[in-house]
Amino acid sequence: MRARNKPWAEDYLQKHPEYVPAEPETFKGSWKAAVFGNDNDLHIEVGSGKGRFITEMAKMHPEVNYIAIELSESIAITALDRMIEAGIPNVRLLTINAEILGDVFERGEVDRVYLNFSDPWPKTRHEKRRLTFKKFLDLYKTVLPEHGEIHFKTDNRGLFEYSLQSFSAYGLLLTYVSLDLHNSDFEGNVMTEYEEKFSSMGQPIYRCEVRY
Amino acid sequence: MRARNKPWAEDYLQKHPEYVPAEPETFKGSWKAAVFGNDNDLHIEVGSGKGRFITEMAKMHPEVNYIAIELSESIAITALDRMIEAGIPNVRLLTINAEILGDVFERGEVDRVYLNFSDPWPKTRHEKRRLTFKKFLDLYKTVLPEHGEIHFKTDNRGLFEYSLQSFSAYGLLLTYVSLDLHNSDFEGNVMTEYEEKFSSMGQPIYRCEVRY
Ligand SMILES: C[S@@+](CC[C@H](N)C(=O)[O-])C[C@H]1O[C@@H](n2cnc3c(N)ncnc32)[C@H](O)[C@@H]1O
Ligand SMILES: C[S@@+](CC[C@H](N)C(=O)[O-])C[C@H]1O[C@@H](n2cnc3c(N)ncnc32)[C@H](O)[C@@H]1O
Repeated sequence: MRARNKPWAEDYLQKHPEYVPAEPETFKGSWKAAVFGNDNDLHIEVGSGKGRFITEMAKMHPEVNYIAIELSESIAITALDRMIEAGIPNVRLLTINAEILGDVFERGEVDRVYLNFSDPWPKTRHEKRRLTFKKFLDLYKTVLPEHGEIHFKTDNRGLFEYSLQSFSAYGLLLTYVSLDLHNSDFEGNVMTEYEEKFSSMGQPIYRCEVRY
Repeated sequence: MRARNKPWAEDYLQKHPEYVPAEPETFKGSWKAAVFGNDNDLHIEVGSGKGRFITEMAKMHPEVNYIAIELSESIAITALDRMIEAGIPNVRLLTINAEILGDVFERGEVDRVYLNFSDPWPKTRHEKRRLTFKKFLDLYKTVLPEHGEIHFKTDNRGLFEYSLQSFSAYGLLLTYVSLDLHNSDFEGNVMTEYEEKFSSMGQPIYRCEVRY
């Protein structure tokens, strides 16, 4: 996802600590109690882009806590705007690199990881950057409980094929798969920005759930 | 696959023991030496229909032994005709139910199982009939070696989704997957009769390889 450089983005994010907690590492192990003030499940989305998915999910599921993880501040500000507009208590935004997830969450603190339309990195030499590469599966494991789940969707055939193999090689259990989400009987789907764009071009959307 | 009842089919098959060995159980454990007269790998196709795939594969790979398994005699006669026409030594045909595979082959005697466009049995109550149901995975295991392979392709989305989950639940390793075989870089694909029909209608063909 490209975005023009927005130097005021950092500033804007910092001005909204109610959605964008400063120094997220300090909440490691206490997100539910200290930030959300409850003991509900915590679901995170890695690479949340403009935040449509996570904000809509948070509206639909007030009994779940959500955290959006988005590397790019210029993109994250749109997610922040959506959160402000929604005015709901069960969603937060972190502009961090997913690579430091283990510094921000305790083992078992995150109940589910969502990956939506992750960058495909189609070249074999970039395999290590794909968010379903072994190294990332290791990382999610460090924050999930024993049988924690990953829910993944994408329009990118190559990435989905790769990911199914990567999940299998890692020993994850495939508990759900659809090769055409929008023509399946899956209920409660919330479209992401990318999903809206690619499905309107007639691409099938692939979706799966795996667990450790 | 529907076929008109052809009472002469059984007769015709019996008249060609060079391709259709009588009493296949008697060769259990000795297919390579006693039937093919060599020690080459043995690949079987379960539900081989009119036999285009296996006959073409046998032509392309003279260093591999092939056995077509097809329940219906009325359908199998077309496969026999293809084998007679090809006039090659490395292919055979058995008109048996796959359920008795374990009576016909020794553990480790079959190096690879092909499943092509297996009947989808879409109703949940017919799950047990699908050739990728757990019971059949047990059965293939009894004739394959330790890390034996299944190669599976179909145009049927529901069957493919089901099968990926069934393979995963069984603990099989997914070593290859394509969600659009005819637009992939897979080389050496041999089309089956069903594949020709459904791909000409614009359906994507799904294909995977798994191993125990
Ligand atoms: C292709 S976009 C998809 C956005 C959104 N999920 C959607 O479906 O519309 C991928 C997003 O992942 C973010 N991203 C990529 N690698 C990341 C990482 N290591 N940590 C956090 N975010 C990352 C990118 O900045 C980009 O916004
Ligand atoms: C849909 S057809 C596909 C034929 C062929 N593989 C193709 O792709 O053109 C499935 C075939 O599997 C056969 N079959 C189904 N169950 C079987 C079983 N238990 N044992 C042997 N053959 C079976 C059917 O008789 C039918 O010919």
